[in-house]
Amino acid sequence: MKIRFLATGGTFDKEYNEVTGALYFKDTHVREMLRLARSSLDLEIRTLMMIDSTEMTAVDREMILKSCLEPGWDRVVISHGTDTMAETARYLGERIRDKTVVLTGAVVPYTFGSSDGLFNLGSALAFAQTLPPGVYVAMNGRCFSWDDVRKNRSTARFEEARGS
Amino acid sequence: MKIRFLATGGTFDKEYNEVTGALYFKDTHVREMLRLARSSLDLEIRTLMMIDSTEMTAVDREMILKSCLEPGWDRVVISHGTDTMAETARYLGERIRDKTVVLTGAVVPYTFGSSDGLFNLGSALAFAQTLPPGVYVAMNGRCFSWDDVRKNRSTARFEEARGS
Amino acid sequence: MKIRFLATGGTFDKEYNEVTGALYFKDTHVREMLRLARSSLDLEIRTLMMIDSTEMTAVDREMILKSCLEPGWDRVVISHGTDTMAETARYLGERIRDKTVVLTGAVVPYTFGSSDGLFNLGSALAFAQTLPPGVYVAMNGRCFSWDDVRKNRSTARFEEARGS
Amino acid sequence: MKIRFLATGGTFDKEYNEVTGALYFKDTHVREMLRLARSSLDLEIRTLMMIDSTEMTAVDREMILKSCLEPGWDRVVISHGTDTMAETARYLGERIRDKTVVLTGAVVPYTFGSSDGLFNLGSALAFAQTLPPGVYVAMNGRCFSWDDVRKNRSTARFEEARGS
Repeated sequence: MKIRFLATGGTFDKEYNEVTGALYFKDTHVREMLRLARSSLDLEIRTLMMIDSTEMTAVDREMILKSCLEPGWDRVVISHGTDTMAETARYLGERIRDKTVVLTGAVVPYTFGSSDGLFNLGSALAFAQTLPPGVYVAMNGRCFSWDDVRKNRSTARFEEARGS
Repeated sequence: MKIRFLATGGTFDKEYNEVTGALYFKDTHVREMLRLARSSLDLEIRTLMMIDSTEMTAVDREMILKSCLEPGWDRVVISHGTDTMAETARYLGERIRDKTVVLTGAVVPYTFGSSDGLFNLGSALAFAQTLPPGVYVAMNGRCFSWDDVRKNRSTARFEEARGS
Repeated sequence: MKIRFLATGGTFDKEYNEVTGALYFKDTHVREMLRLARSSLDLEIRTLMMIDSTEMTAVDREMILKSCLEPGWDRVVISHGTDTMAETARYLGERIRDKTVVLTGAVVPYTFGSSDGLFNLGSALAFAQTLPPGVYVAMNGRCFSWDDVRKNRSTARFEEARGS
Repeated sequence: MKIRFLATGGTFDKEYNEVTGALYFKDTHVREMLRLARSSLDLEIRTLMMIDSTEMTAVDREMILKSCLEPGWDRVVISHGTDTMAETARYLGERIRDKTVVLTGAVVPYTFGSSDGLFNLGSALAFAQTLPPGVYVAMNGRCFSWDDVRKNRSTARFEEARGS
C-alpha cells in the first residue's frame, strides 16, 4: 500500500537557531523520524513548502490540493502547522472525494524531543491506511472529519467543532 | 470511543539499571508516553504483567485473553515483547471473534529515547479505532493479521509469514 | 567543598510554550540536571531571577554581586544568558577579589535536549572547584578570564576578546 | 592547551542492539558529544579499545599507560568503564608523575540519553585543564585522587576510599 507524504512545515519541523535564538525551518525531519520508527511502509516523501501555517496562502493550499489529486496516490498524509490545519482540512475536504487524506502535525518541534510528533506520525499513517476516502485531521491520538474539527486555542488540543 | 490498554512488558517498557548495567522492568511508561503525546483518547490502562516475552507462559496468555474478553471493551491494545508477539497474536486470534485487538511493542526501550515505541503506540491506537473485529500486530508502521505475521529474527522487522 | 549556584535564566533554562509557540521561563532545571548527572556535590541552589540576559539591568547585576559576596561561600557558579554574559563577568570581575566565580550558560535550551547545557554545567562546576579566586566564563569546554572574553555573535562561540 | 582523549569503552560508549536486545560497542561517541557540546577545545581523540572495564587486562592497562606517556601530551582524559576505573587509576597513578591524567565514565550509556556522560565529559575536560600533574577520577561532579577513590557498588557513586 503506497502512501504519499507531503511536508508543508509547521511546528513539527521547526529548528532552533542557536545563534539568534529564533525558531526556523530547514527541511522536514520525517525521513529521520521514519528511520528511527523502523518504518517499512512504502512512502513517497515530498517537501511542498516549509512554512508556519499562519502564513499559508490560497496559492499554497491550491498547491497542496494539486499534489493530493495527482493520479497514482490514493492515500496521502500531510504534515501541517496546527494553527490553520482545520482550515486546510476544510479546503481539501470540499474538493477531494475519492482519496484518503490525513493531516497531522505537532505542538512541540521534533528537534526538541517532541513526543507528539512521533506519536502523531504513527497514528496519521495508520489512519491513512485504514480510513475510507475523505479528509481527516489526526491529532491527540484521535481522528476528526474535515467538517467537524477545530483547534482549541487555549489548550492547543483538537476537538469537534460542533461540540462532542 | 473507549480503548483498553493492557501492558505486559517487553522491550517497550525496559529500564536500565545503572548499578548492575542490566535491563529490568519497573512499570509501564505508557501513561507518560500518552501525556507527552498529548493524547485525548479515553483509555483504561492496566498492567497485567511486566515480563520479557520469551518468558511468557500459557497461563500468562490465558490471563491476557481473559482481559480482552471482559465485557465493556470492544477495542484493546496490548504492549508486548516482540520475540513472541506473533505467537500471542495467534493464540488470541484463534479465540477472539467480536473485538478489535492490536498488539504492539518496540525494538528499543522507551527510556533509551525509543522513537519506535512512540510511533508504534500512535499507530496501534489508530488501528484499534478503525479496524474491524480481529486480532492484529501493529509494527513498523504497518498492520498484520494474526494469521499472517512473523518477526524476522535477523532484521528485527515484522513481515507476512507467508511471504509478501 | 561547598558551592553556591545562582540561577539567573538565559537560554539554559528556557521552555517551549506549546500553546503560543514562544519560549519562556518557569524555573531553573539545574536541580533535575544535577540529579541526572548523579552529582554528589554539596550545592546550594538559588534562583535570583529568570530572565533573558539582554534584559538584565544594573539593578539585576548588583543583586548577583551581592549574592556572590555573601559570607560563607568561596565558590560560586552562575547560570546566565550568553548575550551579556561577558558584560556581567566584567562587572563582577572588577568588584570581586577573594572568591572563585564561574559564569556559564547554553546556546540550546536544556528542555530541547541541550547537550551543551549539561556539558557546560559539568565544566563550570569543575572549574569552580579548581581555579584560584577570580571571575571566569566557562563555555565551549574552555575557561576565560573576565577581562578577556567575548561572545562571537556570528558563531555563538566564546573567544578571547583580545584575539587568541 | 592541547588535550589527548583516550577512549577505552565502558558504559559511556555502549549501544543497544535492537536485534538481540544486548548491549555492545561500536565506536566512541565522544566526537558527537563534543560537537553537540559546542566544544572549541584542541583535542586529539584516539580509540585504544572498546571494552567492558571488567574485561580489562594487564596488557590493556599497559597500552593505556604507554599512550599517556607519549611525549607531546601533558594532559590526558580517559573514558573508562566504572567497574575497574579505580584500579586503572591506581595503576597509572603509581607510574605517571609529570602529567595530568583524568579518568571519567558514565553509569548510563550516552545513546540512552545519558546525562551523566555529557556532564562527566565536561567536568573531566575542565579538571584536566586546571589540575596539577597527577592521576584523577572525575565522577559525580567531583574529582578524586588515584590513591583515594573507590566505586560504591551499591549506589554506583564514587567516594573516597579512606572514608570522607
